[in-house]
Parts: sequence; structure tokens; C-alpha cells
Amino acid sequence: MPRKRVVIIGGGFGGLTAAQSLHHIDVVLIDRTNHHLFQPLLYQVATAALSPGDIAWPLRTIFRRYPQVRVVMDEVLSIDRAARLVRLLDSAPIAFDVLIVAPGSRHSYFGHDAWEQSAPGLKTLADAVHLREKMLLAFEEAERRRAAFGTQDRLTFVIVGGGPTGVELAGALAEIGRKAMGPDFPTLRLDDLAILLVEAGARILPGFSADLSAKAAAALERMGVTIMLNSPVSGIRADGVTIGSEFVRSTNIIWAAGNRASPLLASLTVPRDGSDRIKVQPDLTIPGDPWIFVIGDAAHCAGPDGTPLPGLAPVAMQQGRYVATLIREETALNQRRPFVYADRGTLATIGRAQAVAQIGLFRLSGLVAWLLWCVVHIFFLIGFRNRVRVMSEWMWYYLTFKPGARVIYELPRPSHEEQRTSQARSAGHDLEE
Amino acid sequence: MPRKRVVIIGGGFGGLTAAQSLHHIDVVLIDRTNHHLFQPLLYQVATAALSPGDIAWPLRTIFRRYPQVRVVMDEVLSIDRAARLVRLLDSAPIAFDVLIVAPGSRHSYFGHDAWEQSAPGLKTLADAVHLREKMLLAFEEAERRRAAFGTQDRLTFVIVGGGPTGVELAGALAEIGRKAMGPDFPTLRLDDLAILLVEAGARILPGFSADLSAKAAAALERMGVTIMLNSPVSGIRADGVTIGSEFVRSTNIIWAAGNRASPLLASLTVPRDGSDRIKVQPDLTIPGDPWIFVIGDAAHCAGPDGTPLPGLAPVAMQQGRYVATLIREETALNQRRPFVYADRGTLATIGRAQAVAQIGLFRLSGLVAWLLWCVVHIFFLIGFRNRVRVMSEWMWYYLTFKPGARVIYELPRPSHEEQRTSQARSAGHDLEE
Repeated sequence: MPRKRVVIIGGGFGGLTAAQSLHHIDVVLIDRTNHHLFQPLLYQVATAALSPGDIAWPLRTIFRRYPQVRVVMDEVLSIDRAARLVRLLDSAPIAFDVLIVAPGSRHSYFGHDAWEQSAPGLKTLADAVHLREKMLLAFEEAERRRAAFGTQDRLTFVIVGGGPTGVELAGALAEIGRKAMGPDFPTLRLDDLAILLVEAGARILPGFSADLSAKAAAALERMGVTIMLNSPVSGIRADGVTIGSEFVRSTNIIWAAGNRASPLLASLTVPRDGSDRIKVQPDLTIPGDPWIFVIGDAAHCAGPDGTPLPGLAPVAMQQGRYVATLIREETALNQRRPFVYADRGTLATIGRAQAVAQIGLFRLSGLVAWLLWCVVHIFFLIGFRNRVRVMSEWMWYYLTFKPGARVIYELPRPSHEEQRTSQARSAGHDLEE
Repeated sequence: MPRKRVVIIGGGFGGLTAAQSLHHIDVVLIDRTNHHLFQPLLYQVATAALSPGDIAWPLRTIFRRYPQVRVVMDEVLSIDRAARLVRLLDSAPIAFDVLIVAPGSRHSYFGHDAWEQSAPGLKTLADAVHLREKMLLAFEEAERRRAAFGTQDRLTFVIVGGGPTGVELAGALAEIGRKAMGPDFPTLRLDDLAILLVEAGARILPGFSADLSAKAAAALERMGVTIMLNSPVSGIRADGVTIGSEFVRSTNIIWAAGNRASPLLASLTVPRDGSDRIKVQPDLTIPGDPWIFVIGDAAHCAGPDGTPLPGLAPVAMQQGRYVATLIREETALNQRRPFVYADRGTLATIGRAQAVAQIGLFRLSGLVAWLLWCVVHIFFLIGFRNRVRVMSEWMWYYLTFKPGARVIYELPRPSHEEQRTSQARSAGHDLEE
């Protein structure tokens, strides 16, 4: 039998786990970046608590010890099911016998794509670095206004979406805003710092039980976050956001409200749900094609209660292992047991020594949940050398609130250097003449 | 007597040291970035051995314990000597009684400013991150060509300028190219990796003695660097560089050949040298103005042999302390002893356990010089928390050649996302129709 070739699109949790679980089968792993990203900690890069390199690992380095895995850094343009090819932007097409599609998702602005300009989201390292620089520059700008006018506008951050990402961002912003930026900006009045967490539904963290939602909301409010419930956003501009009928001035709006699966999935020409996810079969294949799998955020995979499984790392990793087993064992279509997600619990962190956890019937909050959150995240990072570094960062951060990641190195001022140079030159010439 | 106000332009080694040495005097420290940069290690960020946050510290955090120091992040447009004002891009002008001008330098392309596009230099964190991404992408591109054509072009890096920066870059590139990228790119033939160090003069490291130059050259050649001496560059294009009469194809050209002081200095309207540096008086003031000082890379300060002092961190730091003492003690012009640079030696590192050091009449090379280099750099980093992190990074790096900084997060592909989306959509539509 000729060796089969498995092509995996996407080096996220699903694609990475699948590649590692395929053992001696030839794999081509394609990703548009050169790294695997530990996305659950991305908000810590966006809030300057960690550096980009702390939560990302080059895929080629991860797969050094897997000679059968070839890593290709490229953009997948389309999947040609008939020709069994994946078409790429910079390289020649790659043929596959088996395909695992795990391209993840981007933000969904629910038809208002123009909002992205003013309310960026948080999916990639580039997103996080841009958010971080915007946040740091907002404090600089407030300090300049304070110096110039003796007063300052409110330093308002608006986070749209009360899911785990929104909650984690709001908590981290409140902490860094008060505890780290406070001492750095002694002239700023930090009671002018406003952090709004805006949720269209009736409670934050809708994936958790109602009592944990309430505990998380109370913890956030103690940290100075204003929570607005039942507050759909109806408009976003560069200078503010319309919440219900109220316009809130802010130049720091972060989108954490919705996801849409990769547009690449359109080329599979099978039915998709309202979030553009592929409605997969119980064995995670697409209808009518037993060797094309879709996993992770790109898959609409019904859970035990009929609703789709959430877009979490453990779901994607379990799916990656499941499909790798089917491929390794060449399980025939009629022999496949459906994928079942083993839910080991859900965690969301709120801030320093504050988290909520829901594990089956157990519900934890406060310090115990936070310690659990730390242990779980350290556990997930095992095998990567950044574990030691991330731990030392965290310890240092929680001890000192003096993060070393608060460095702005990409100034959003393309024209200023020119402007300064020409103005300085003309000023110099005027004086010289 | 009314309190005097000292304004410092630039938070590099000179400006930072001056601000820290002025004790209880009111200081406004202006920098266009929000951080102090440990520039001697910038080449390690450019070669993906360290992360940006490892060698930069927010100025506001450094000055938390100095309530008399106000940090302003802004661009200085010009200095108005008559009105005793510094004019800024984003803020109102700032009045000074005493001014310390320490804006540093940028690259000089000796009248060929168009070369910068194809041969960027290395002065800022943004420069280093761009060089790093370009270097990492060059390996990705070579791997794609290798996969597509079964062969590869030479992976050629050209470094223009054989001073300490050029030597350190060449050595670090040789190491990371062979030892770290090798295992990551098993399909690449690394004998196709070429690193050219191009020097117009008769030897590299002209600031060192001839025997140390020769030892450094031998060490670099053992590491696989090709050194071209007496080789002035006469042209640089996007696809290569003309060295003498020879055209060398390369898309990875790095400029380390010359410096030009900040254009801001023009507004001081006093004589400058060929590198645009201010020719300062023996007390580092400008002619005719006893309370305007110019220090660091911006100053042309004659050394004992009449040649200007080199643009090194110790020179700038000693100058910062010297002018701070004059200001604190309000030393009258006729009472000032001239600035004297206490040369404690010069060091340049070549690679793993390889460096050269010149300390008075002592000359060291090899492992001993490298250990000295480590100790000196760790010593300079004392007081900053990154010391621990940089040390652990180095140790890890030298043990494993698996740096965590090899992450590309700013893809130089502004149009690709659009392209991919539209192509994927049209592909999808074609198939769906």
C-alpha cells in the first residue's frame, strides 16, 4: 500500500495535536504564521503582562523531532476536493489523501465589517501587539492632555462582549490600569479611568452557571469595571460606541463579541452554520467525504444537548487526537464511533487571585479557582520551555506590577519622522538665516 | 532663587544617566519612545536570540522613584535658543533654564538615502524587529523554493560595515543560521548559507588593535563568515549590492556602516562636523551658551588624541554624570574643568564564547574576553529586573540553540489577507455554482 499523505491546515490547538498524534504517517502542516500560539493567554500580551515570545513557539522547532512532519508557512487559498489539492499563495499546490481542516476563526462584526477599524479584536499576536500599543499610547495621550490643560478626559476603555475573552481583558485592564500604570503616571487621576464591559445578553459568562456569572460580575465591579448588561451595540465609530441609545466617547474599543469561521471553508462547498462553521458529521468529516475532517473553531460539532461545542482549546485538542486515531487505524466509515467531548470543566480568570471554574457539578470561585487556573495553564504549557519563563513573569507581575512588556516599539506615526525632520530643518534654516 | 528647570532630550544612556544624577533638580525628560533601550544588545533581538522586552524598560517605570523627573513621550521638533523653549510635535512647548541635548544618531548612507529601503540599519527596537522578521522570512522563502524546485538559491546575508555592530551581527547570524535554523529547516542545505561582512577599510574592528582585528576575523571565518576588506559598496538595490565592481545578489542586506547625528541639532545653529554632530566645548556646552549641553552620539567631543570620542554607552554615561555635576553645583563657566573620558576598555563579541577586549594595554580574546563581556553586560543591566531574564535567556540559548524569540508576528503581507479571502470566496462560489 502506498504511504498516504495527510495535510493539516492550521497549527492551532487542533492541528498541532493532530500532527503530533499521527505518529509515523507523513504529514504536511500548513500555517500562515511560523508559530503555534497559546491563545488562552493572548489577553495577557494585549495588556502588557507577557511578551509575544512568551506564548508562541515556532512550529518548526516543535516538530524538530518529528521527521515525518513537514511544516509549510503559507496561506491556503482554497481546497480543491475534486483534484485532492490544497492551493497556496506562495507555493505550488499540495496533494492530499487525507485532509484535516483546522483554520480557526476570526472576529465576526455581524455584518458591520467597518467596525473592525475602530474596534479591533484579539486572535493573533499581531492583534495583541496592536492592542497593547494602543492601550499604552492612550495613557501617554491622557498624560499629555493633563499636562497641557490641567485636566483630562475620561480614559475610557470599552470591551464589547462579556464572554471569557471580554471578562479576562476587562479584569487585566483594570489591574494594569490601576496598579501598574498608576505609579508610572503620577499626574493622572485614575478615577478618570473607566473600563466598560458591554454585553448584549442578560449576564456575563453565559457559558457558566448563573451564580458563577454573578460572582464574576461582583469581582469585576470591585476592581472598578462597569458592567452593562442587555446592552447591544448599535454603532461604532473612531470616536466612540453607541450602546443602546447612548453614545459613549472612547477611542479604545475592543471587540470580543463574536466569531466567524475562516472564509477558506467556503471552498469545501458543504453546508455551514450562521458563524460560517462547517456542520460536521459525528466523525468530524464533511458530508460525503470520509477523509476530509474539520476540527476546532471551524467545526460546528453538536454536543450532547444539541448545541454546538464551544470554541475551546480542549475541544480542538480532543478532536485532533480523535481524527488522528481514525487516520492511523484507517477506520472504515461504518466502523467509526462518533466524537464525544470529555468536558473536564471550564475556567475563566478575572484578575489577581480571582477566577471562576465549573467542573461538572462543582463550582469554584476566588483564590481556589485562580490557583486551579494557574495549574491548568502551566500544565498545558508543559513540554514548552516558555513554561518557566511565563511562570517567572507571572510571579514577578503579581509581586511587583512592574511588567517588562510595557514597551512601545511600533509607533503608529508613519509621517511624523518626516514631519519632524522637515520642520526641524526649516526651523534650523530660519534661525541660521 | 527660583528653582531651575532642566530639560533633557533623549532617554538613551546619556540622557538617562544625567536625569538620574541630577538628584533634587526638576527635570523634564523627553523621548520619542516610551522606553530606554539597551542598544548594545539590539543585535541579539535582530537575530532572534532575545525578545524586544528583554532589552528595553519603560522610562516611566525607571523614574517611578524620582518624583522630580517628569517623563514626556513626544517628538522634539526644534530647540528655540532665543525663547529658551523646546517645541514638540504633540504637546505645548516646554521652557528650559538648562538643556541637555542627547538625541543620539541614525544611520548615514553617505548621501545615498535611497539605499535605506533595501539595506535597513539597526538603531531602534522597531529596526530590530523588522530585521528579525526579514531574516526569519528569508529562511521560509528558501525552504519554499527548495520544496518547489528541489534546489535553492544561496541564502545570502550581506552586512555592510565591519565595526562592532557589523561583527556582532555577522557572528550572531552565523550561529543562529547554522545551529538554530539548521534543525528547524532539515531540507535546507546550509552550505548554501552565505554571510558576507563587507568593510571599506583595510581591517574589521578598526577601533581595536591590529592583532585583535586579526583574531576576530579568524574567529568569524571559522564560523563561516566571508570577510571582504577594502571593499567599498557602490550601489544597493532591492535585489543586491554592488561591492567594488562585483554585484552580489541578496535580498538581506543590513547597514552597519555609518552614523549621522539627529537632524534636530540643526536648530541649535552652531557648527557641526561631517557626521552632523555638534562640535562641543571642553565642558560639553555649545559655543556661547553655558547652559546648553550636548552629549552622547550627538556630540563631537575631542578625545586625548584629538579624534572625536567614539559613540559608546560608557562615553555617553560619563558625559551625563559630568554635566549633571556642573548643573547641580551651578559651576561658573570659568571654573569648569574639561570633560575627560575614562576609557575602561572596549569589548566586542563575536559569538558563542568568542569575543575581543582591549583594556588599556591589555588585549584579550576568545573565551576569557567573552566571559568578561558577559560580566560587563550583566553589570550594566543591574538595577533592571530584566537581568535575570536576559541571563536565563542566554544560558538557555547557549545550551539549546532553541530561542523563543523566533516568532514572526507582523507579516509583511498587507494585501494577502484580502487576496486570500477574495480568492477563496470566488473559488467557493465557482464550486458552489
